[in-house]
Amino acid sequence: MSKKPRILVTNDDGIHSPGLRLLYEAVKPLGRVYVLAPETPKSASSLGITLHKPLRIIKTKLWNDTSIYMTNGTPSDIIYLALEELSPHFDLVVSGVNIGDNTSIQTILSSGTIGAAAQAALLGIPGIAFSMDVTDATEMEEDRETRDNIVRVIRIISSWVLKHGIPKGADLLSVNFPRHVTKSTEIKIVPAARMKFLQKVSVLFDPRGRKYYWLYGTMVDPEPGTDIYAVHVEKAIAITPLTLDLNIHGENWDNVKSALESLARLLREHLEGEERENR
Amino acid sequence: MSKKPRILVTNDDGIHSPGLRLLYEAVKPLGRVYVLAPETPKSASSLGITLHKPLRIIKTKLWNDTSIYMTNGTPSDIIYLALEELSPHFDLVVSGVNIGDNTSIQTILSSGTIGAAAQAALLGIPGIAFSMDVTDATEMEEDRETRDNIVRVIRIISSWVLKHGIPKGADLLSVNFPRHVTKSTEIKIVPAARMKFLQKVSVLFDPRGRKYYWLYGTMVDPEPGTDIYAVHVEKAIAITPLTLDLNIHGENWDNVKSALESLARLLREHLEGEERENR
Repeated sequence: MSKKPRILVTNDDGIHSPGLRLLYEAVKPLGRVYVLAPETPKSASSLGITLHKPLRIIKTKLWNDTSIYMTNGTPSDIIYLALEELSPHFDLVVSGVNIGDNTSIQTILSSGTIGAAAQAALLGIPGIAFSMDVTDATEMEEDRETRDNIVRVIRIISSWVLKHGIPKGADLLSVNFPRHVTKSTEIKIVPAARMKFLQKVSVLFDPRGRKYYWLYGTMVDPEPGTDIYAVHVEKAIAITPLTLDLNIHGENWDNVKSALESLARLLREHLEGEERENR
Repeated sequence: MSKKPRILVTNDDGIHSPGLRLLYEAVKPLGRVYVLAPETPKSASSLGITLHKPLRIIKTKLWNDTSIYMTNGTPSDIIYLALEELSPHFDLVVSGVNIGDNTSIQTILSSGTIGAAAQAALLGIPGIAFSMDVTDATEMEEDRETRDNIVRVIRIISSWVLKHGIPKGADLLSVNFPRHVTKSTEIKIVPAARMKFLQKVSVLFDPRGRKYYWLYGTMVDPEPGTDIYAVHVEKAIAITPLTLDLNIHGENWDNVKSALESLARLLREHLEGEERENR
């Protein structure tokens, strides 16, 4: 008899996000499920890790008396905390469902939802991030058909990954849902666009007349064949496989390395002081 | 007469880090230099962006009456704030010198120092992150020869990038200094290792007997030819060109896509509800 797979459910919107409950509901039948999520929203926390302060884990009950855990840590912290405190191994980490889609590399790199799945991937645990094109929590729940379809899709993808693993060549999967998911919704396997947002700063004045700034974005015109286009224009479900390899390969590496070797030669001429054994 | 290049200096250790001053000193002769840095340390803030609260910019004086700016934002926020408030364009963003080397993809993905250079790169501004293998600020300053060599190296690299740009195929450069930099220190162009740290959680008890957790890492045995090996074993300066392209390319993409298409077919069979036009 095979052992039940162990699944960690987390997010970056915090324990009270309906997306967390939806994700829990979706993967619950698939194995032994643990929930550890931030006590408060950690949106755009990226792969940030908390090194400068103590972290706590508090057990609480939610959703018809389900035991869940909350922490003051980030989504990336959570992977390490869960391995320490909840289970020494996981077969799958699912993160989300994020309020707001995480399309484009610009967004992916600053997303806590994807950060959690990426940290899992770095540790060799299959990770999947789920996000949805809504602007607030209530929109996630308002359409029953969409909600039920999302639960189905998450369950099938998670079950598929438990069986087959993340496809070789990829490190993790990011899945973005459109606002409505019906029987006609298409499913696209698409790469991430590079940029999603153009402008980013709003300048405002507080009641005492002092200037402050608020970051926001206006969406670029999306290119066909990208995750943004799939979700925002085609209203499709976008499945985007991602790599965490930031190194440069092949011919590109040869060219970049050779350009930088000329810089290195220049640097070697300019180090000063006594010759000395450094090793 | 060509216009002076505009250079933004930032970091994630905050305005009082000696690394920031060192960086400022290094690039000051190269153009018109602006300093905007976090008022408090934002280590491991990654590419995190602050969307949920107002940001402030405060002008202050440091280092023999140099005007600098500080903010409550993250290193990534800083790029956008600087473009809004200090200059509508920059020719170069330099970030650091970080207290602690940023070697390995694991570390790079959670580094605020690299986050700032990466945000710049996403906006098309050449970005360079500088970091040093020291564990606290005082170690950065204790050895005059090292300090002077680091200033020289930063100046030459920055000046080279201002002239040639980031080599085509790369998005940004990450430079890691060993603890001592002498005339004999080697300069290596090396890719990033994947992982740097093994264990990550220390379990402790506060004076009231309640459990808490502190994240930390023990270093893996580094592989030759990687950034970690260059800095920690060879005690060399490591120059690591990075890409931000998290997409999968070539044959890998074909394989991953074809595996995921079978998942997509499965999903298409399981969406329920009425057929409907979604566009």
